[in-house]
Amino acid sequence: MGRALAGALLAAGREVTVWNRTPGKADDLVARGAREVSTVAEAVGAGGLTVACLLDDASVREALAPVMPKLAGGTLVNLTSGSARQARELAAWAGEHGVRLLAGGIMGVPPMVGTPAAFILYSGPRDVFDGVVPALEPLARPHYVGEDPGFAALYDMAALSGMYGIGAGAAHALAMVHAEGGDVETFSSEVLQPWLEAMLPVQVALANVSGSVPAEFNAAMQATGLENMVAASGEAGVPAELDGHLRAQLWRMRRAAGIVTG
Amino acid sequence: MGRALAGALLAAGREVTVWNRTPGKADDLVARGAREVSTVAEAVGAGGLTVACLLDDASVREALAPVMPKLAGGTLVNLTSGSARQARELAAWAGEHGVRLLAGGIMGVPPMVGTPAAFILYSGPRDVFDGVVPALEPLARPHYVGEDPGFAALYDMAALSGMYGIGAGAAHALAMVHAEGGDVETFSSEVLQPWLEAMLPVQVALANVSGSVPAEFNAAMQATGLENMVAASGEAGVPAELDGHLRAQLWRMRRAAGIVTG
Repeated sequence: MGRALAGALLAAGREVTVWNRTPGKADDLVARGAREVSTVAEAVGAGGLTVACLLDDASVREALAPVMPKLAGGTLVNLTSGSARQARELAAWAGEHGVRLLAGGIMGVPPMVGTPAAFILYSGPRDVFDGVVPALEPLARPHYVGEDPGFAALYDMAALSGMYGIGAGAAHALAMVHAEGGDVETFSSEVLQPWLEAMLPVQVALANVSGSVPAEFNAAMQATGLENMVAASGEAGVPAELDGHLRAQLWRMRRAAGIVTG
Repeated sequence: MGRALAGALLAAGREVTVWNRTPGKADDLVARGAREVSTVAEAVGAGGLTVACLLDDASVREALAPVMPKLAGGTLVNLTSGSARQARELAAWAGEHGVRLLAGGIMGVPPMVGTPAAFILYSGPRDVFDGVVPALEPLARPHYVGEDPGFAALYDMAALSGMYGIGAGAAHALAMVHAEGGDVETFSSEVLQPWLEAMLPVQVALANVSGSVPAEFNAAMQATGLENMVAASGEAGVPAELDGHLRAQLWRMRRAAGIVTG
């Protein structure tokens, strides 16, 4: 991901200094005009805006701890994936060193960086965001989500959990078709994907119990559909792993429709 | 759903005879030109093609058992939601009465019937499908999936399980944001939905372990992402209900990437 970010900045004509734990990984970036340094201190010493994108929160702490005095009075943009708590603690730690933190969550995989397909969630002080957004725009569309430094990570992780729900459901669907000797490729491209694309907005709306229930919502039909689905999964010899979720969701739907209360 | 189907046939100028367990539910259809009858026997006696769409498989058996002799030599189209086994058993039962069954699975909610947003999966004898498809086309785009009478239901139920995966993931995501005091509506419309739309094809492709692994797949990054997600969910006080799925999916990904075997 770090390489994709640096590449997007180079493509936009920016001066980029890169450091990576593994020397040589930046060779292609150097060929494209980046300056590679062998220590974090040199990278931070180059001046400009410091952007961190490492494996995890612990890696950020480890890499930056020795150089925090050099960053005092400046801004650190952290695009490393992590939890809201980690982001809040990192912001507090940075603050102790006189460094202002802008926390970011990259919504996209590396090939999407620098294209309209990706966006980046940012949270932290509004004036810090406004100040650095021109420098960060080449990476992906910036989307500011609030002062709380944890919000970028919260929204990032929440969206990620939503995404894995798609993966879990799709895996279950494909396993059912495979187990019964169906054509997985045809099912996937001609049935599953168009169906999921059509129903995605409906499912997102129904998941929000604070929202209104569509007029056509029929809890009895939904209940039968869920029971059929679990039965069909059992027939196919595929454990209905989503069973707990489905029942929880059905209960939410029934509650939203006023069929049960509490 | 039955009303939506009959309405689509009426809109296409077809003669429609309707029967419903609850009298009066078809008043709007009658106003639009349908003929309502008070018994299943009268409906079947009207001739033409018989289309059943009831709550569940048991309702179909109960409603049609007394009139199966009248249907002998004809075709029954069953659009009632059910499992593959139920469809296969219904086809065998119909066969014993000299009735040829075309099994269907409606991919859409009632407001989508008669619009390009819906499609209907059909399975059963190919010549039966070819014979009745002109009559059924006004309902929704017909999609034939094979001779096995269970395949329409199998594909329908599998696609439904995929859809509920979206709902489960979205509900989890919204619960996390709600628990931490985030703006659920803004998150849903500005972050979650566009993100899920962008990632849906990727997740469907990754769910199919028989497919190829994208070049940019980074199992270590995925593992960290999953761990962060589970941690973030715990921080928000939202049980990581999808945890089991996520770990199963991660394992599949690692296996697909050749990091683990077996």
